[in-house]
Amino acid sequence: MINITLPDGSVKQYEEGTTPLQVALSISSGLARNVISAKFNDVIVETTTPLNQDGNLVLLTFNDDDGKQAFWHSSSHILAQALLKLYPGINLTIGPSIDNGFYYDVDLKGQSISENDFPKIEAKMLELARGKHDFEMREVSKADALDYYKTRNNPYKVELIENLEDGEITFCDHDDFTDLCRGGHIPNTGFVKAIKLMNIAGAYWRGDENNPQLTRIYGISFPKQKELKEYLELLEEAKKRDHRKLGRELKLFTFSQKVGQGLPLWLPKGAALRDRLEKFLKDAQENAGYQQVISPHIGQKELYMTSGHYQKYGEDSFQPIKTPQDGEEYLLKPMNCPHHCEIFNSQAWSYRDLPQRYAEFGTVYRYEQSGELHGLTRVRGFTQDDAHIFCTPEQLDEEFKKVIDLVLYVFNSLGFENFTAQVSLRDPENPSKYIGSDENWTKAEAAILNAAEEKGLNYKVETGEAAFYGPKLDFMVKDALGRQWQLGTIQVDYNLPERFELEYKGSDNEMHRPVMIHRAPFGSLERFIAILLEHTGGNFPLWLMPEQATILSISEKYENYSKKVLSLLKKHEIRATIDNRGETMGKKIREAEMNKIPYMLIIGEAEVENETVSVRRHGGDDLGEMPVESFAKILETETDKEIYKFEV
Amino acid sequence: MINITLPDGSVKQYEEGTTPLQVALSISSGLARNVISAKFNDVIVETTTPLNQDGNLVLLTFNDDDGKQAFWHSSSHILAQALLKLYPGINLTIGPSIDNGFYYDVDLKGQSISENDFPKIEAKMLELARGKHDFEMREVSKADALDYYKTRNNPYKVELIENLEDGEITFCDHDDFTDLCRGGHIPNTGFVKAIKLMNIAGAYWRGDENNPQLTRIYGISFPKQKELKEYLELLEEAKKRDHRKLGRELKLFTFSQKVGQGLPLWLPKGAALRDRLEKFLKDAQENAGYQQVISPHIGQKELYMTSGHYQKYGEDSFQPIKTPQDGEEYLLKPMNCPHHCEIFNSQAWSYRDLPQRYAEFGTVYRYEQSGELHGLTRVRGFTQDDAHIFCTPEQLDEEFKKVIDLVLYVFNSLGFENFTAQVSLRDPENPSKYIGSDENWTKAEAAILNAAEEKGLNYKVETGEAAFYGPKLDFMVKDALGRQWQLGTIQVDYNLPERFELEYKGSDNEMHRPVMIHRAPFGSLERFIAILLEHTGGNFPLWLMPEQATILSISEKYENYSKKVLSLLKKHEIRATIDNRGETMGKKIREAEMNKIPYMLIIGEAEVENETVSVRRHGGDDLGEMPVESFAKILETETDKEIYKFEV
Repeated sequence: MINITLPDGSVKQYEEGTTPLQVALSISSGLARNVISAKFNDVIVETTTPLNQDGNLVLLTFNDDDGKQAFWHSSSHILAQALLKLYPGINLTIGPSIDNGFYYDVDLKGQSISENDFPKIEAKMLELARGKHDFEMREVSKADALDYYKTRNNPYKVELIENLEDGEITFCDHDDFTDLCRGGHIPNTGFVKAIKLMNIAGAYWRGDENNPQLTRIYGISFPKQKELKEYLELLEEAKKRDHRKLGRELKLFTFSQKVGQGLPLWLPKGAALRDRLEKFLKDAQENAGYQQVISPHIGQKELYMTSGHYQKYGEDSFQPIKTPQDGEEYLLKPMNCPHHCEIFNSQAWSYRDLPQRYAEFGTVYRYEQSGELHGLTRVRGFTQDDAHIFCTPEQLDEEFKKVIDLVLYVFNSLGFENFTAQVSLRDPENPSKYIGSDENWTKAEAAILNAAEEKGLNYKVETGEAAFYGPKLDFMVKDALGRQWQLGTIQVDYNLPERFELEYKGSDNEMHRPVMIHRAPFGSLERFIAILLEHTGGNFPLWLMPEQATILSISEKYENYSKKVLSLLKKHEIRATIDNRGETMGKKIREAEMNKIPYMLIIGEAEVENETVSVRRHGGDDLGEMPVESFAKILETETDKEIYKFEV
Repeated sequence: MINITLPDGSVKQYEEGTTPLQVALSISSGLARNVISAKFNDVIVETTTPLNQDGNLVLLTFNDDDGKQAFWHSSSHILAQALLKLYPGINLTIGPSIDNGFYYDVDLKGQSISENDFPKIEAKMLELARGKHDFEMREVSKADALDYYKTRNNPYKVELIENLEDGEITFCDHDDFTDLCRGGHIPNTGFVKAIKLMNIAGAYWRGDENNPQLTRIYGISFPKQKELKEYLELLEEAKKRDHRKLGRELKLFTFSQKVGQGLPLWLPKGAALRDRLEKFLKDAQENAGYQQVISPHIGQKELYMTSGHYQKYGEDSFQPIKTPQDGEEYLLKPMNCPHHCEIFNSQAWSYRDLPQRYAEFGTVYRYEQSGELHGLTRVRGFTQDDAHIFCTPEQLDEEFKKVIDLVLYVFNSLGFENFTAQVSLRDPENPSKYIGSDENWTKAEAAILNAAEEKGLNYKVETGEAAFYGPKLDFMVKDALGRQWQLGTIQVDYNLPERFELEYKGSDNEMHRPVMIHRAPFGSLERFIAILLEHTGGNFPLWLMPEQATILSISEKYENYSKKVLSLLKKHEIRATIDNRGETMGKKIREAEMNKIPYMLIIGEAEVENETVSVRRHGGDDLGEMPVESFAKILETETDKEIYKFEV
């Protein structure tokens, strides 16, 4: 008999060789119907894998991330099978699951496939899936495995097998199809009820452009047709909310080939939005005792040798800037922290002066490959809402909690109500990856866990995910489309204070090392604005809107009154514009709607006479005629509700 | 007879061969006593030079810049003579006048001079000066000139003479001293009544470090002892106001060897000051219809090839940044304009949309040699309060005037009441130096002169001083010590619109090129803050002060009341701090005075009881006990008076 521990902590006894599916059946037949994969002692196994020792068992359904991966990995087998049937003679290479679905890379050997062929391939896949063929793993010897693919003239699989050890090679069979595979499948093909091939692309074998080019076919699959439909609708909505599209339409930012890829140019409306976000955070930070500092965008190479960043980023990023004299070399700064350490170092400190909290909207540069650039989410220069707190070890716990308060305030004020946190700790089995003493790491990790616990965060712990210089707490938000984004980060650092020899005089009159906290609630302003755009679809919180209202005049002859309304709005610090073009009111409203302007103030003869405006809300609500003062009041109430109070 | 035109336009007839001194005598004997040099047809001449043709004559006194130069140049001859007498055997090299005084470079040939020897040398100089020896120019043949210095074993003068043409070589004699010299002297040594040697330094012959090292002795001289005294007092005051010293004392900025020379790090108080200056200008610009944009600190080399800046700055500045892939090269931006051109180019424009006014606090980089770096006035990265106006040719005049209004508003609000302007036009004799058509230059120059005239500026015109891309208007302010600083600049540019192929659709439905105006009222934020520091000695206008008030509590037991006062001040947006250290009130006041904090609010038992504060002004004025509200009112009135109203 073996002891199986389930996620709820309960322990059950089973005969040796019992499979996860049998365990599921022993719990409920409903559960068993939905179980598609399992994790035994942290390793993914088949539902049919015999369990031969005591251990922890997690039964996985499609709702689990790992369950989805098994589902999509299995679907790639079905895709490969279908392709072989429809295009005999092609060579299969690899077919993994990905974040959203799966792909298979094939060498078409002269044949051709286009997106027009997708319906045919999808139909064949569904036909094969309906056969409810079991996925069955078996071990093969290296010789047999090589023989199998050599017979089939497949040099790709042969190359893969040659790099494997004899004894660790497995094949997976279903129906008449066999593939080299490490495992992790659903029980049978019948679970796959809905399939959609998404697109086709070129890919080099093993990602190396010196190798032959293959054809990559992307697909996604679901246990229910309804789930596929919802997913496609979500995709459609995501496309509408694509921040690159909205950024263009709302005239927020642009890119120029001449300036360079991945280097956004902020247009007036985007710059104003960014400015407002900065001001919002600056104010909150001032309340929380931060002080702004300003440092240059470059620093001598030596600075980053001291910090260790050059060793980490130097070779893969923008190269050092040489100078005509003095032989100095400068780097575009990959990080702001070394500069802040030098600011801290510019004077002597006593424990009474700490914490020092230096904040800066600091721009850093990373050379991302051009293929990886994506709108504002993946750029080559981005502005962090960075701050570094230099405190005594005794202040660390308290400071960490204060930072969490600030981050939560930011998320709430910006409409992100759905977030989780991740505590990233070091990998205890790979201590050489990290800089700093074991004792310091232990202290820092305890401080983070303690703060996360006390602030009641919904957090998980990831071992081995820490930065090289310290453990961290990252925040993940879920946007309106249910997508996860990593945002703010808080990191403890015992390392840079050591490298920069930072110190303060303690109450014992001895010199001590301060502890450093790095933190950025937005993370990067560019990326944050992209996420905010996709989350809100451009309908930002009112307080953040570049244009809060537009004055639409029925006739050009009301221009003077329009201007009067505008100056009244300005007095109330309402951001507004006048549209007095000779266009129809219908066209003006349509354009204001397209530009997501929250309020339209319509002016005709009656409004001029009554000294009022007729107010229309974005989306169509008619709020009626009212004096400008009343409208200002409505706006004030609305923005007050949006911005949370931040008290320290 | 020859016709001599004087600066007031009057024309007088003199016999050929009349000297400037004789002309002065013919006007008044008082004038003749003060005339020390002259300019005839724009060339500096001696007061004893015979005038042999018609021409314009300017008689120069010590009050004229050119007069000072003749005075100091002549003084360097006296220095050389004195040195030769005191240190026989040394070799003279060159001895020019400079902005403030003169120097002479000598090869001491093993002898040594230190600042301790200055009194002795000064005494010898004064003794020689009192001899009233005339400065007399004479032509010498190249052979005789070489012979003269070869006999004296002076290889430096020999080298100088070898590079001159026979027939253009002149010597100047006074007393028993002769020097190779192009001329430009005062009548005789007797005019020099006050002399001060300032310092001693090393200098390489001809500035080349491969050449022998010489000893440079700096000095200054005046026609009156009183003027020397005033100058030395001014120097003393300037030293006290040195922005590098004040910046350190007031904790505004710092430099770090590791970050790099010439790259300021702004400490919290300095960053807040800079932020406030930026906000002040942003608000004014918003009122004037500008829109903020944001562009990256780098751009592809290609961008600056297009703009022509690479050709201009490329080789002498920070070198291109290479990338690990794609072979792209980036530059730290030397200018913001190319980026703004690309922003303009990101969409289509109609004449109805113009002017577009893009403003950005944009940081640019220039590699200055380390020896030329100086605090914040000469740095390697500085932030321009830059803006570019894209308008139709018809709008140019109007826009130019609006910019002048804005610049004057800025100067007035910052306490610079003493300023002049300079219109820089192209050098018509060197047209190849400039980019752009003759017609466009003519138009642009007319627009600037017209605006300067209409706005009643006190301006002078400098031909040949234009930037390579267009004519400009620069503002010079005089600071509290009477020193001139170049500040704001406004430049018309017909060139970049051409290079970037900017265009808009005119009312004629045809495409046209817009005109561009570059402008920066501060010029560079770094330099402006340096000048403001030296102008005010750190006593900034109240509205700009990092700390407007500090609360000094007589005992720590009044901490709660101090905090209450602080939060009341915050409500009134008054920037204040609490000093509740256990120090004596005397020490606290002294430190607040040293930190130039405008108001000290003293809290003792009486103030707690009466809910008041006792107000002390920086410098010592006691304003008495009052409620916080009354103090806030005083501050409000004071700052209101400082900031001028800016209406468009």
